[in-house]
Amino acid sequence: MNTTVAQTNHQIRLARRPVGLPTRADWSFTAEPVAPPEAEGVLVKTLALSLDPAMRGWMNEGKSYIAPVAIDEVMRAVGIGVVIASDTAKFAVGDRVSGALGVQEYARFAAKQIARGELVRIDLHLGTLTQWLNVLGMPGMTGYFGLMDVGQPKAGETVVVSGAAGAVGQTVGQLARIKGCRAVGIAGGPAKCEWVVNELGFDACIDYKAGPIKDGLKAHCPKGVDIYFDNVGGEILDAVLTRINRHARIIICGAISQYNNTEAVKGPANYLSLLVNRARMEGIVVFDYAERFPAAIAELAGYLKDGRMKSREDIVAGIDTFPDTLLRLFRGENFGKLVLQVAQA
Amino acid sequence: MNTTVAQTNHQIRLARRPVGLPTRADWSFTAEPVAPPEAEGVLVKTLALSLDPAMRGWMNEGKSYIAPVAIDEVMRAVGIGVVIASDTAKFAVGDRVSGALGVQEYARFAAKQIARGELVRIDLHLGTLTQWLNVLGMPGMTGYFGLMDVGQPKAGETVVVSGAAGAVGQTVGQLARIKGCRAVGIAGGPAKCEWVVNELGFDACIDYKAGPIKDGLKAHCPKGVDIYFDNVGGEILDAVLTRINRHARIIICGAISQYNNTEAVKGPANYLSLLVNRARMEGIVVFDYAERFPAAIAELAGYLKDGRMKSREDIVAGIDTFPDTLLRLFRGENFGKLVLQVAQA
Repeated sequence: MNTTVAQTNHQIRLARRPVGLPTRADWSFTAEPVAPPEAEGVLVKTLALSLDPAMRGWMNEGKSYIAPVAIDEVMRAVGIGVVIASDTAKFAVGDRVSGALGVQEYARFAAKQIARGELVRIDLHLGTLTQWLNVLGMPGMTGYFGLMDVGQPKAGETVVVSGAAGAVGQTVGQLARIKGCRAVGIAGGPAKCEWVVNELGFDACIDYKAGPIKDGLKAHCPKGVDIYFDNVGGEILDAVLTRINRHARIIICGAISQYNNTEAVKGPANYLSLLVNRARMEGIVVFDYAERFPAAIAELAGYLKDGRMKSREDIVAGIDTFPDTLLRLFRGENFGKLVLQVAQA
Repeated sequence: MNTTVAQTNHQIRLARRPVGLPTRADWSFTAEPVAPPEAEGVLVKTLALSLDPAMRGWMNEGKSYIAPVAIDEVMRAVGIGVVIASDTAKFAVGDRVSGALGVQEYARFAAKQIARGELVRIDLHLGTLTQWLNVLGMPGMTGYFGLMDVGQPKAGETVVVSGAAGAVGQTVGQLARIKGCRAVGIAGGPAKCEWVVNELGFDACIDYKAGPIKDGLKAHCPKGVDIYFDNVGGEILDAVLTRINRHARIIICGAISQYNNTEAVKGPANYLSLLVNRARMEGIVVFDYAERFPAAIAELAGYLKDGRMKSREDIVAGIDTFPDTLLRLFRGENFGKLVLQVAQA
């Protein structure tokens, strides 16, 4: 079942552990011949990769929710690809698939990886290829289960989400609206804030670059904050803590403001607001909900279809741009879900 | 129904808001004639007062779970007293009662306070007078509902509690053992630690003055920490965050290490461990559980009776010693629940 494949697989590997923001020197560019699939395996051609804040964490040593990327290993990245050679009846050439392809042009999946469900067929009737890296992908799943399972929103509550124009934030705010909540975003700059309100339909969006977050929260959350979905940590988390309601839920999804710190992480100094308000702060790791992804994807695809949910992807072409493109996340330069296009679909 | 009462009520009032540790100059000593009860009210003679870390918070301005004590107001304190004059059928002279008596020798309760349940009759068959300020009082209730409702312990789990020799900590650790958990205390100095293990039956106790908490946690929590009941905040909270298990629960009950700070509160720098471990940190305010106090008291009184639970009170006599006695809490000098004895029972 093999078709002709290109000869060379260009890859980007982690050359050393970065201190602060990753630089070009933290990466190595390698090329190796493309090998055919192993027995009962497949060969996938990478089409697009998801660039996510979490990638910064994977580059650090030490215990986390997932093993760090090893030095000289191909950088981990979730992506969408097309099966170009298959030795298993489970996948056919031409199938669109999603999995941890890595930052490389071709990825092989062995039989045992396939058995573990590490490669999933995607249905382009439910969403576009890049939506499968966004609302229907890990960011969407993170937003969905973080909000619904950890946050447990009730109609009429106020939901605040930071990184509102980012991949997770888009899903959280729009889903909050669909569930009958007031959705207030936090994003950087007027363009993002306008888009979040006018295009995505959030009730309000606070521009953290324009002035103190506290004032924005006061103005746009007149009944306080019931749920805060935190993608950024740092001062914004501390500001929201001063505005939470009784029994508020704070979902700790990420802390992009802290990922490239060369100093110690800044803990939330206002955490005793949890005590005063009998509130809780809880972490989410999306992988825990894998069994329920299909149901969540079906629900979100329905919202995409009926227009209640929109998505925006910020697509940059060329695998070689990876080191610089990744930095756009940490500079807040991406507008929508950041996608690295590796090949034409 | 009145009996003869003394002429003078000595009181201690908040003279000004302290900066850092309260000093003598933050208090004023007043005396006023003892007045008879109002219509349908009672007059209570104070026997003993509970001195608690939370009192430091009540002295600060600003929004909290309870209004601050006003300047020149009698300092708020929960205590045990005896009814010495009554104009209501709800209380008889001689009744032992518990309520927010304040730091004064006599307290009057008006009809509407009684209607709101602010004064409660206590049963000395269930526990001694000082146990009613400890295991059967607010500290016991805080430990009980914090551990059981917020912590939701399962047999076999490891429960760590700071301030283990203090009022709340005693209850938490012993209750954890009764529920089939491994109980590990954190306390200051060998005497407290030995007592916590040998007398209260904790599995282990870490002396935070003897060396890094982290090493103690590693040694005594070989299977990690499932529940951490935090009374202290600061570095100890941060150390425990590095040892928590998946789905751990951290109960934020207090932060005695931070109450007298003249600098900003130190937030838990390791809070992203909540994310990695899908763990939660949640605040508790005991008043929320008032309706269920009787059931919890009955359960805890049963453990006192059958010897599975012990208590220790550190009793200091004399209302005039209040300003100095209170400081013992913040210096970690009290050994057991700190009680100020105001009059002989």
